[in-house]
Amino acid sequence: MSNANKSKKVIITAALSGAATFKTNNPAVPYSPSEFAEEAAKAYKAGAAMVHVHAKTDDGWATHEIDRIRETHDAIKDKTPELIVNLSSAVGLGATAEQRLEQIVAIKPEMASLNTNTMNFSMMDRKTGQILFDNVFENTFTMLQDFGKAMEENGVKPEIEIYDLGGLDNVLLIDKQKIFSKPYNFNFVWGVAGGQIFRPEVFTALVNAIPEGANFTTCGVGTDEYKAIMMSCLSGGHMRVGLEDNVKRPNGELVDGNFELVEYAVKTAELLGKEPATPDEAREIMGLKV
Amino acid sequence: MSNANKSKKVIITAALSGAATFKTNNPAVPYSPSEFAEEAAKAYKAGAAMVHVHAKTDDGWATHEIDRIRETHDAIKDKTPELIVNLSSAVGLGATAEQRLEQIVAIKPEMASLNTNTMNFSMMDRKTGQILFDNVFENTFTMLQDFGKAMEENGVKPEIEIYDLGGLDNVLLIDKQKIFSKPYNFNFVWGVAGGQIFRPEVFTALVNAIPEGANFTTCGVGTDEYKAIMMSCLSGGHMRVGLEDNVKRPNGELVDGNFELVEYAVKTAELLGKEPATPDEAREIMGLKV
Amino acid sequence: MSNANKSKKVIITAALSGAATFKTNNPAVPYSPSEFAEEAAKAYKAGAAMVHVHAKTDDGWATHEIDRIRETHDAIKDKTPELIVNLSSAVGLGATAEQRLEQIVAIKPEMASLNTNTMNFSMMDRKTGQILFDNVFENTFTMLQDFGKAMEENGVKPEIEIYDLGGLDNVLLIDKQKIFSKPYNFNFVWGVAGGQIFRPEVFTALVNAIPEGANFTTCGVGTDEYKAIMMSCLSGGHMRVGLEDNVKRPNGELVDGNFELVEYAVKTAELLGKEPATPDEAREIMGLKV
Amino acid sequence: MSNANKSKKVIITAALSGAATFKTNNPAVPYSPSEFAEEAAKAYKAGAAMVHVHAKTDDGWATHEIDRIRETHDAIKDKTPELIVNLSSAVGLGATAEQRLEQIVAIKPEMASLNTNTMNFSMMDRKTGQILFDNVFENTFTMLQDFGKAMEENGVKPEIEIYDLGGLDNVLLIDKQKIFSKPYNFNFVWGVAGGQIFRPEVFTALVNAIPEGANFTTCGVGTDEYKAIMMSCLSGGHMRVGLEDNVKRPNGELVDGNFELVEYAVKTAELLGKEPATPDEAREIMGLKV
Repeated sequence: MSNANKSKKVIITAALSGAATFKTNNPAVPYSPSEFAEEAAKAYKAGAAMVHVHAKTDDGWATHEIDRIRETHDAIKDKTPELIVNLSSAVGLGATAEQRLEQIVAIKPEMASLNTNTMNFSMMDRKTGQILFDNVFENTFTMLQDFGKAMEENGVKPEIEIYDLGGLDNVLLIDKQKIFSKPYNFNFVWGVAGGQIFRPEVFTALVNAIPEGANFTTCGVGTDEYKAIMMSCLSGGHMRVGLEDNVKRPNGELVDGNFELVEYAVKTAELLGKEPATPDEAREIMGLKV
Repeated sequence: MSNANKSKKVIITAALSGAATFKTNNPAVPYSPSEFAEEAAKAYKAGAAMVHVHAKTDDGWATHEIDRIRETHDAIKDKTPELIVNLSSAVGLGATAEQRLEQIVAIKPEMASLNTNTMNFSMMDRKTGQILFDNVFENTFTMLQDFGKAMEENGVKPEIEIYDLGGLDNVLLIDKQKIFSKPYNFNFVWGVAGGQIFRPEVFTALVNAIPEGANFTTCGVGTDEYKAIMMSCLSGGHMRVGLEDNVKRPNGELVDGNFELVEYAVKTAELLGKEPATPDEAREIMGLKV
Repeated sequence: MSNANKSKKVIITAALSGAATFKTNNPAVPYSPSEFAEEAAKAYKAGAAMVHVHAKTDDGWATHEIDRIRETHDAIKDKTPELIVNLSSAVGLGATAEQRLEQIVAIKPEMASLNTNTMNFSMMDRKTGQILFDNVFENTFTMLQDFGKAMEENGVKPEIEIYDLGGLDNVLLIDKQKIFSKPYNFNFVWGVAGGQIFRPEVFTALVNAIPEGANFTTCGVGTDEYKAIMMSCLSGGHMRVGLEDNVKRPNGELVDGNFELVEYAVKTAELLGKEPATPDEAREIMGLKV
Repeated sequence: MSNANKSKKVIITAALSGAATFKTNNPAVPYSPSEFAEEAAKAYKAGAAMVHVHAKTDDGWATHEIDRIRETHDAIKDKTPELIVNLSSAVGLGATAEQRLEQIVAIKPEMASLNTNTMNFSMMDRKTGQILFDNVFENTFTMLQDFGKAMEENGVKPEIEIYDLGGLDNVLLIDKQKIFSKPYNFNFVWGVAGGQIFRPEVFTALVNAIPEGANFTTCGVGTDEYKAIMMSCLSGGHMRVGLEDNVKRPNGELVDGNFELVEYAVKTAELLGKEPATPDEAREIMGLKV
């Protein structure tokens, strides 16, 4: 695989919260800026080089309110200046395309997620197939183009989220306009109700399909997470964990916080003779300004 | 591959029109019921066992108007009673979920397409990456559930359209409710601006991912078409061609009609020692009433 | 993947020695029966359910001498009666087909390796491509047939070694004679100079190619080992480690013994929420008499 | 796939005879130099750019006798000077490594086959699994190294034969010595009793595993042939057909000669909008002197 990371350094990202994750799912889910700062600091100490952030109201709802997001972002950077902060451009239900983008342009984090395909993004009962909450996550070609251009123009490196092969093909197609700076940084997402579930051969197909020289990381919803990060690490990719995607230990118990999920990623890296990248090493790999 | 069709019979489908294909693309695109009947009859004589139909107004626009669709359906069956008619449940731009479904329930064709994921379904300039027409094709879990149930209850066998791995996973998830009758019949679609483009290893991943005993066919937009149907036929699957997906010969010239596209599929089958299935053989394979 | 082991139990095998591994490679490599017994006991305590054995002379050379092999086998079973002992039917350089087989028939271990294709099995300088020792490992169809029949008739369950896709196809072909009892137990081997190196997509191809209901484990020479066992564990397979294949920690230092390699496999299992199978659980899974 | 041939030109090779194919298999199998010349000329007219040759005695046995091979080679070139002649370096049963190589060095064809792994190469009853004739085909690392060097030094471009992933890994390993000139030209072989059978996902794995910029063609024994060449052509590779590999039409009847097999390859190319390369176009693609 030409896209394999041959170095010993593996970038671990902690996705601290998530639009649909609450303290009822795991009490460690951060809501307030200070809780985010605390979770981020502990994740950093455990080995994370980057945190991915969905800012929340005090009640735990995802917010697109710029001041709150900035306050959350700044609290993390104040407490742990080394960390790369990666803001979500999805924010949460009900945000318009404009709202999703303007907070990124206003705050200019080092990195931000860029979603690449319109899709169902629902809550389903996985045992019975019952629909709990049906929802469309809109990411049109126009949004992909406009978000991509705005991020690049504002010095925000996009983390390109791939929920399906089609999302990757959308990126390759819109990028005929020469929107994205190299290296590309992809995140393969598994297990959203509306996107692909984790299958090793599809993972490999994605690795083979991304452009030469691109980086990739991965995250998986629920139990897909541990398989997905192992597959990524052994394939030369990076790892994203965090309460956004999964609140449990491999054995099904609740984790004590994002830091514990980071520890599992560190152990995975060590079993492959690799080491967590520092934030500066991660910046170097992902093409951020060091 | 456990899902490979071991028999010598290959089902060829002709997708006669398509919501976004006009006489300006190829003069053979049928608009009126009698044009549809004529194209269908010629496709049947060339080797097709099934026709897939997007009925159109006299101006060539896709329509959800029940009388027109019924008239088109009946014209085909009157002229060629043997043929399986497979109606679209997507119809065209602007139709509501209700409009998309009610024509199927009213007309009760032997088969109908069932779309499985919300996605971008746009028109793009593939050379420059410019957006020509941006559009979301909505297929929520609720629609997948409701369309699936209504089809099965009305004796309409769904052809399950897969534009991406995630669409397949949506089907497997909603089907925990036990909605779909066996055998499942999948159509792998390649090259829509919003869905996956054709890659051999993803084709194989899809074949490996569908349930044991399921049938699969495939179609590809534009030049993906010929590669996709070959891959399907050599993998033990079936083939869909037609002016909906592609209006050109392998060498880039315009075809003379759907029948000519069917002829290329027949040649592909023959090069693999296979034969076109008759409509009744196709019914047997796909689990339709014979 | 239909062949995925859905249970939480993972069989860990320790390949204690190996024909070409000496104390000069790692001082923990066992030569004498008592050293084998000691290594096996420690591997068992660490989590191994099975040991794979190449008996050796006091000088460390692989031997086909029946008494020595029996003595080694019995020493292990005397000290740790619970363990499954899996003897090599390859033994080492210079052994004839008869010598390779007669020790298995004489000693009747619970399990024995069955090699499936003639191949180069050389020592190469992997950096320069220089040939250090060139060697052919002969496993003709006749041997595959005769070894397979003799093992099954003597109650020795074969562990079917796959160094290449062709080896698997040899097995599927000779087994048209109905030689092998179910379930089949495969071991995918990576990184011998003469066989396939580890590639994730080939791993998946092998998992997809083995018959429904078969078990698989894997081992890899040198640094391929840790990637291979992770891939197997996340794909629903089992894990083989041991000084035969690899004498080093993930970080490149020498391990303290087979037990330490078993510990890495246990950690891998735990990171996926799985547990080491006991020998009796392993017997149940692999179809041995409990 | 980075290795895909983006051009419209497809190289068709006709493997005219084969060590184990006789007039009893198909009366068109050539034995005498003039029969070879005749078959080659007809294959060229049908669209072949290259012929692969196993010279034979008048009784049809494969021979390593230099004069006979030269006579066969020259008869082909005299009648059809345009053609690329590719001689076998395997010749047939019982030839020593020296005999296999010296005829290549003596005759210096434009191209010659280079076999890459020791393997079983037997005759099996594929229905019953009975062994009809058991045989080892020896291709040690030393032979791979020596044959490779001798070919390159004598201006004979190797066609690198891949019967299994391990053979490819042997080549990549020995080539750390910098033996082979670019571009590499691989032939993926399917269905020998001893090597891999055709599976689409393994085909893709091979395409992904060969070095950037390499060319690939493919051939398959018996019924694997037609699937294999289609898979290759749609994947951007080339096609080898011929009585060596398969003596039958897709429908199971005997073909009238090599030319007819070439015609099926031409039809396959045309269905994908491609054209047979002329010998000079083939020389350009494969890096031969034009």
